[in-house]
Formats: sequence, structure tokens, C-alpha cells
Amino acid sequence: MRLAELSERSGVSTATIKYYLREGLLAPGRQINATTAEYDEEHLRRLRLVRAMIQVGKLPVATVREVLGHVDDESLGRTMRMGAALWALPQVPEPDAQDEYVRAAHREVGALLERLGWANSRALATISPAYRSLVVAVAAFRRLGYDWTCERMLPYAELMHRAAVLDLDFVETHPSEAQKAEVAVIGQVLAEPMLQALHRLAQEEESARRYGFE
Amino acid sequence: MRLAELSERSGVSTATIKYYLREGLLAPGRQINATTAEYDEEHLRRLRLVRAMIQVGKLPVATVREVLGHVDDESLGRTMRMGAALWALPQVPEPDAQDEYVRAAHREVGALLERLGWANSRALATISPAYRSLVVAVAAFRRLGYDWTCERMLPYAELMHRAAVLDLDFVETHPSEAQKAEVAVIGQVLAEPMLQALHRLAQEEESARRYGFE
Repeated sequence: MRLAELSERSGVSTATIKYYLREGLLAPGRQINATTAEYDEEHLRRLRLVRAMIQVGKLPVATVREVLGHVDDESLGRTMRMGAALWALPQVPEPDAQDEYVRAAHREVGALLERLGWANSRALATISPAYRSLVVAVAAFRRLGYDWTCERMLPYAELMHRAAVLDLDFVETHPSEAQKAEVAVIGQVLAEPMLQALHRLAQEEESARRYGFE
Repeated sequence: MRLAELSERSGVSTATIKYYLREGLLAPGRQINATTAEYDEEHLRRLRLVRAMIQVGKLPVATVREVLGHVDDESLGRTMRMGAALWALPQVPEPDAQDEYVRAAHREVGALLERLGWANSRALATISPAYRSLVVAVAAFRRLGYDWTCERMLPYAELMHRAAVLDLDFVETHPSEAQKAEVAVIGQVLAEPMLQALHRLAQEEESARRYGFE
């Protein structure tokens, strides 16, 4: 298809597509003559992914380029290809290891992973951005005076593990490794807002059931 | 306690506390003389809440002021007092009702609420920001070519309902209505990053279990 059709089918303006091509977020089309290039379904899929990361995920162009680099890296195995892309997404900064709340949070999260039997997560703890985000969140709770312990997190962690099983079952329905890595990124960018919205909706529902609309 | 002690116990600088006082995010202390005011535990708790909303939740000062206004509004019932505070948090804009993906998303979300028997959420659908966020997320999936249906969301919604039950059980352990409203806000600002981190950690764990660290 030509640029005009790619624009129409993706809902992205031709000016924006040209910008993505210049920035290397989209591979060049097959040049037919000096002024015309031909694009295929792969371009359309990639364009929609770029659009989702920028518009829904609010990611800067440089991050999108980095994430796509990992998604396209055929030298990586499946866990690393999906994981490397996820790890390029914006992360919380390293917490202050001297802070008493951060130290307490490390203890509680460590105890949680042990109770859950998440041996892989324990092995990745020093390098995983997800582990770091969890420590930061728990430290923030404790700093506010909430006794946020391993026991309190345990039922939430079990629910999230069941969500992760659903996620990976969905990823596995896609045939190619490239698509699997792409779906894993989309899972972060799109599924997290969906889970958050479902959570808020469930809170509204449960709150109204308990207290009515008083 | 004096300003210096409030600063030490909260970890917030005296200059920042003075700024919060000027902006009305913190009630004035009890004036002892022309230059000295006395603060109590309530100030400390409120200061930590403000800090969490600004530092962890990245909320602008005007939004924090609006949320606190709802938390403090004793004329509201419990659902409304907790809900009104949540509704003041940043929300996604209204989706384009003419867009074909948005229309399909409305259909799927409507079918989901019916299947779940969430009658209260259905009643609130036209005004709830959570419902709107869900429609936007589902429309984004569908625009990317993923057939994101009621059936696919159902198991996630059931998990999130169990999380909401845990949330409200925790809110109910707090005695006063003001504390309940405050905890509900903290639940949004702090528990959502925690859930997200647990979800990512669970994805890492499950991915490593299935594919190893190839």
C-alpha cells in the first residue's frame, strides 16, 4: 500500500508517519520510484504499536526506539527478548539504601518472595526494575505510617500471579517470537491501564454494595 | 511539636512545609506567639499524605488541594466521600463517541458489567472515570488489531474484584470517616504502583518458569 493508504488504515497522519520514518521508529518502505514507496501489513502493525506506546503509554520517542530495538533483536531468547523490552520502559529511580523505610521495605519484599516461592524473582532482585518499584511503593506506605507487611501483600501477589499466567497464556497464542515480544510490550502499555481501570471500577462496585450511594 | 520537629519527623524540609502552609495544603499550626506555631500528630499525618500525593503520585498542587477538600468534607456520605476524592485524581479525557473502536469498546465493557453482575457500576457508567478509562484502554487494544472482548476481560475483572474486597476490608480497619477517606486516596496513589510492581514481578517469575533465562 502507498503512504496515503497506510495513513488512512492506521489513523495516523502522513506528516506523523514521515516523522516516525525519519526517527527510525518505522522501517522504510520498498522504494518504487524516486517519490513513491510501498508499505505492507508489517508496517501497519508496527505503526499501531508505535502509536500505542506514544499516545497511550506516553513514552518519549527515544524510549520507543530502544524498546523496538529489543523487540527486533533476534539474538535474544524469549524471556530476555520480552524482558529486555519491558526493562527499557520508564522505571522508578533507585531508592536510598540508607533510608530506614527502604531497608524495612527490602525486608518485607524479601520475605514475601520467600513465602511465595518466587525463586526466579529472588534471583533477579538486585537487577529487576519491578522489584525496585515494589520496594519504593512499600517504603512509601511505611513512611506514611502504614504497617505494610509481607502478610498484607501476600493475597495481592497471589492475585497478580494469576493475572501474569493469563498474560503469558495470551502471549503464547501468537506464533512468531517477534509478535510475542511485541505483545509483551503492548501488555505493559495497554494492559496496565486496563487492569487499573478494572480495579477502580471494582472498588466503586464494592463500595456501593457495602455503603450504597449515601 | 515545633516546625523543626515536624520537619524532622516527616522528612520534609521546613521551606517545603512553609510552602504547603501558604498553598493551604496543610492547616496552620496553633500560634503560640508572633513567630512560633505548634503542630500535632494530625499535621504530621496530613503532611505525609500531601507528600505521598506529590512525590509518589506526581499530582499537581491544585489537584492535591481539590482531593483534600473532598477528604475533609463531612457533609458527604462514605461512598461519595471516598469516591469524590478518587474522582478528583487525574483522569483520561472523554473518548470520541463517533470512533468505531470506541463504540465496540463500549459494547464489550457493557457486556462485561452485565456478565459480572456489577449493577452499581452499570448505573454509574455514564459518569464514572473508571468506566471511561476502561473503554479507552479496550479501544486502544482493538485499534491495534487485538480482539479484546468481554470474555477476555472477565477473568481479569474477577481478580480485580477480589483485590477491591481486600482494599475495602483494609479501609474499614480505620476508625474515623476522615481516615477512611484518606486511606482510600492513599490506596489509589500508593497501592496502584504496588499492584503494578507485583504484576510485573509475577510476569518475570512466570516467564522465567516457562522459558528459563535463555
